[in-house]
Amino acid sequence: MATLEDALALIKRGTDEIISEDELVEKLKEGRPLRIKAGFDPTAPDLHFGHTVLINKLRQFQELGHEVLFLIGDFTGMIGDPTGKSATRPPLTREDVASNAVSYKEQVFKILDPAKTRVVFNSEWMDKLGADDMIRLAGQYTVARMLERDDFSKRYSSQQPIAIHEFLYPLVQGYDSVALEADVELGGTDQKFNLLMGRTLQKQHGQAPQVCITLPILEGLDGVQKMSKSLGNYIGVNDAPGEMYRKILSVPDDLVWRYFELLSARPMSEINALREQAAQDNDPQGPKKALAEELITRFHDAAAAEAAPRSAGNQIALGEIPDNLPEVTVEAGEAGELHILQVLRLAELVKNGKAAKDVMGRGAVYVDGKPADPGLMLARGETRVVQAGKKNIARVTIS
Amino acid sequence: MATLEDALALIKRGTDEIISEDELVEKLKEGRPLRIKAGFDPTAPDLHFGHTVLINKLRQFQELGHEVLFLIGDFTGMIGDPTGKSATRPPLTREDVASNAVSYKEQVFKILDPAKTRVVFNSEWMDKLGADDMIRLAGQYTVARMLERDDFSKRYSSQQPIAIHEFLYPLVQGYDSVALEADVELGGTDQKFNLLMGRTLQKQHGQAPQVCITLPILEGLDGVQKMSKSLGNYIGVNDAPGEMYRKILSVPDDLVWRYFELLSARPMSEINALREQAAQDNDPQGPKKALAEELITRFHDAAAAEAAPRSAGNQIALGEIPDNLPEVTVEAGEAGELHILQVLRLAELVKNGKAAKDVMGRGAVYVDGKPADPGLMLARGETRVVQAGKKNIARVTIS
Repeated sequence: MATLEDALALIKRGTDEIISEDELVEKLKEGRPLRIKAGFDPTAPDLHFGHTVLINKLRQFQELGHEVLFLIGDFTGMIGDPTGKSATRPPLTREDVASNAVSYKEQVFKILDPAKTRVVFNSEWMDKLGADDMIRLAGQYTVARMLERDDFSKRYSSQQPIAIHEFLYPLVQGYDSVALEADVELGGTDQKFNLLMGRTLQKQHGQAPQVCITLPILEGLDGVQKMSKSLGNYIGVNDAPGEMYRKILSVPDDLVWRYFELLSARPMSEINALREQAAQDNDPQGPKKALAEELITRFHDAAAAEAAPRSAGNQIALGEIPDNLPEVTVEAGEAGELHILQVLRLAELVKNGKAAKDVMGRGAVYVDGKPADPGLMLARGETRVVQAGKKNIARVTIS
Repeated sequence: MATLEDALALIKRGTDEIISEDELVEKLKEGRPLRIKAGFDPTAPDLHFGHTVLINKLRQFQELGHEVLFLIGDFTGMIGDPTGKSATRPPLTREDVASNAVSYKEQVFKILDPAKTRVVFNSEWMDKLGADDMIRLAGQYTVARMLERDDFSKRYSSQQPIAIHEFLYPLVQGYDSVALEADVELGGTDQKFNLLMGRTLQKQHGQAPQVCITLPILEGLDGVQKMSKSLGNYIGVNDAPGEMYRKILSVPDDLVWRYFELLSARPMSEINALREQAAQDNDPQGPKKALAEELITRFHDAAAAEAAPRSAGNQIALGEIPDNLPEVTVEAGEAGELHILQVLRLAELVKNGKAAKDVMGRGAVYVDGKPADPGLMLARGETRVVQAGKKNIARVTIS
């Protein structure tokens, strides 16, 4: 059992804001399992490491003995876009929701403890509310306060349309906290307004207000913009081991410590020690490899983490040379040189001799970014970037 | 059967705006009974002549063969004030609504033809809508357009709170038109925004948009401010005959022609003839008496209208002398004088001799605004204001 001080330090690690810390301490002192709510979009999930910042925090609460309410917001998802303007947001069916929930579980249970996770759907209570209940809920908040929400105020002042139902969604999210009697709600910094709505509505329903904890938005691989699919600067939870490895090793040197804080399960003391060691050794890649091993083990397994350096990614165009490559050394033996097909096999870029011939036959073997001559021999002392198909590439030294 | 031209002239009489007249003409040409919608508050009705401007217009539609949908907005009435701020707006029960509907019928069927009136309650369809349907409805309109409504824009710019459910009520009113497939909706000029909402939502639901007709707000007895209970410048539908008579005779001379246009069932040709005659005769009170006779007959009966001039009002404090009094002459006969109890009876301020003694015994007989001496005699040629209790007063001449 963690001390209150340790628990608080773990919860505060990497968070942006806690509203309020005093209330959190009071709740922790009660000694009961708290209900920790986090809401998720009901559309098909394809999570990247940016999303896992929050899920890691949920995991930490579980390690402290608390219960996670993993809320899938299917009620509004099944409504779709009532303005009819967004063809890309068709209403979800119950089957869609169920199938997406399965996919969520597959992904998040690589982090969360299923025994301490309750997956809930807000249609459970929202479907029971009538138009009159929705009106009563809307009576709990004013237009002016709603327009204070950052995105609304920007859109309103720039005369971009806000449909009135958009004012109802934060109220639904807040009401979810009432229905769940949440003790704590987590969200990104961009969710602060909606998290606070839960506090407002809980107070109006005579409940103790939930503590709101915001988590930072993770920067993507470029180290500048937020991690996102559309910007292409992301690491997907379902990325192949080699792909993950390549991407993690391409993280800017400074950013890796933020990734450690927000993504690693290691205690901060260990991370700080690693950081000192890396500075002493002048080895910026070392910590990245350690982080890659931890995260590939989490999302795949230890064997995949071990093998990942030898298959640096599954999305590399033929002839493209990534920034960070696994380095492999192969023995030329007495001959002092190796045929390219031998190199492929010894460097484990292919499974066996037959696979080596196949990939060569397809013209998919590249050396230093150029198609390899089928008769190519590499001599002891040479170091070349060798690629066998789109998934396997390494910097190979002949020794 | 009225010609199209006559029908249009009748509909246009006294209206403020028709949106649009072309669409109205098209609908009238269809030759079917149109559905004419008007919405009423579900609270206990206590209608005054200001309210009857609209009800008279409904009656005119009935005379042209159309069907009136008399809509009682009970759905929102049963919600009450969801902000909890207005203690004066408790939620109505179903029993309240039913009882108020009975009271409405008693009052409006003095004008409307019950055979061509369908009393409807919007809870019939609104109770079936879920929170999701309310959200879909809210998706049909934008915050910016809602804030264009006159009262909202004033309150928003002066930083007075607008609760979000207030944005939903115009949508409910508009949806009522969809549910009823209304052809025409009537309302006061202050309702224009809400009437147009019906058009918007009907179009979005694939219906032909209703024609919106606004009617002016009737000026009160002061001729300046709108007629209203709280300003005390009203004539109530349930006012006693004498009270109605007194009030109508107190209307400013110019205003009576507006009252004729908006409240009288006489054709405009007849009203114009009356007006010319009154100008020729220099008799401003004559038309008021004619209007009083028509309206007292409508809301009471012909006998009451005939008797009204002799009982000018039921709300006159003892000793108060109203501006306009019925004038009565009583014969003193050979004696040349009458005892006050005789005057009361002959002027029909009391039913009989016993009632005269009773009212005198209660000290409720006033002459020229002062308590009457029990022995008072009035001589031929005298003219006195004689009051018997709070309901009966007249200017009595002894001849």
